[in-house]
Amino acid sequence: MKQIQLLNKIDKIGTDEFDREKYTLSETAENPCGILVRSSSMHEMDFGDNLLAIARAGAGVNNIPIERCSEKGIVVFNSPGANANGVKELTIAALLISSRNIVGGINWANAQKGQAEVAKLVEKGKSKFAGPELRGKTLGVIGLGAVGGMVANAAYSLGMDVIGCDPYLTVSAAWSLSRAIIRAENYDEIYAKSDYITIH
Amino acid sequence: MKQIQLLNKIDKIGTDEFDREKYTLSETAENPCGILVRSSSMHEMDFGDNLLAIARAGAGVNNIPIERCSEKGIVVFNSPGANANGVKELTIAALLISSRNIVGGINWANAQKGQAEVAKLVEKGKSKFAGPELRGKTLGVIGLGAVGGMVANAAYSLGMDVIGCDPYLTVSAAWSLSRAIIRAENYDEIYAKSDYITIH
Repeated sequence: MKQIQLLNKIDKIGTDEFDREKYTLSETAENPCGILVRSSSMHEMDFGDNLLAIARAGAGVNNIPIERCSEKGIVVFNSPGANANGVKELTIAALLISSRNIVGGINWANAQKGQAEVAKLVEKGKSKFAGPELRGKTLGVIGLGAVGGMVANAAYSLGMDVIGCDPYLTVSAAWSLSRAIIRAENYDEIYAKSDYITIH
Repeated sequence: MKQIQLLNKIDKIGTDEFDREKYTLSETAENPCGILVRSSSMHEMDFGDNLLAIARAGAGVNNIPIERCSEKGIVVFNSPGANANGVKELTIAALLISSRNIVGGINWANAQKGQAEVAKLVEKGKSKFAGPELRGKTLGVIGLGAVGGMVANAAYSLGMDVIGCDPYLTVSAAWSLSRAIIRAENYDEIYAKSDYITIH
């Protein structure tokens, strides 16, 4: 049986890929041929002679000593884009929350608890949180990879004008963009024309 | 000069409609021919003999004594849909915020301030706020008027399956819906099939 070591909790949808007649998966595997990792730092780890590959559930590989792996012939995989939709949704949430100071509004509403004449206080105080709508504003997107492209398309469908810039744009990423997204020549154009800027 | 009374602060875009050679607008107009109102309660007000019309900047008319106005021949206008996009954006924000407990996450992050080893604490604690994505979930929309229709379309463009129900649906409202919005036969179908429900 080949050993696979799990340095973090990995979702079942990933671990189910392994044929259990050939592989044993555990946190304590000794001298594994493969390692699955999320956020654990591997910089201080010693790698056994069996180790062929490290797979990261996530985009970045800053927790993995790439250079040492390269020297030892250990292949490092990452999984860019796997959580792109989740990040897109959080980015849209951040745009809405910050544009209207929604968290400030929630804290203010909670502070009215138990006060006399709450209805009148709310009627008077709520205008402080009127904040601008996103519709009709211009969003500048820096970086149009897996996440940035989805954010650009979603913001456009919410009625924003969207301009984007990515010096390393791939054909595949460009293909997935709504044709309504306008290409900025450079970052300066983004800074000059945007009401909101998001960096990916 | 005809007098128009402003019971609340009304945006310039509305008051600019009046020809200042014919109308005087003020908060203290005596015996006005028209009244503009937002949230002030008019139930205890006496209406002068000149009053022809009351216009409300908003959808509901619960602050206006409709029956008394009808008896006296005073026309009451409202402005449904005027703030529909703003409410749509807040509804989408509420969906995102509640699905992932984003406010809980912000409060939790603030509580880590000043603690030693913040990076480790965050790495350990952040999974409590992993919450589900909206994409692929089913949103039930009850009421497909000015706001509900916009929410339905926006949720669909964020990747949700959307079902809607409105016994009083107008042709004009139906026309503005994305054809991907599925018509539920009744509220029970909404309750049975939805992961999230929004009422408009």
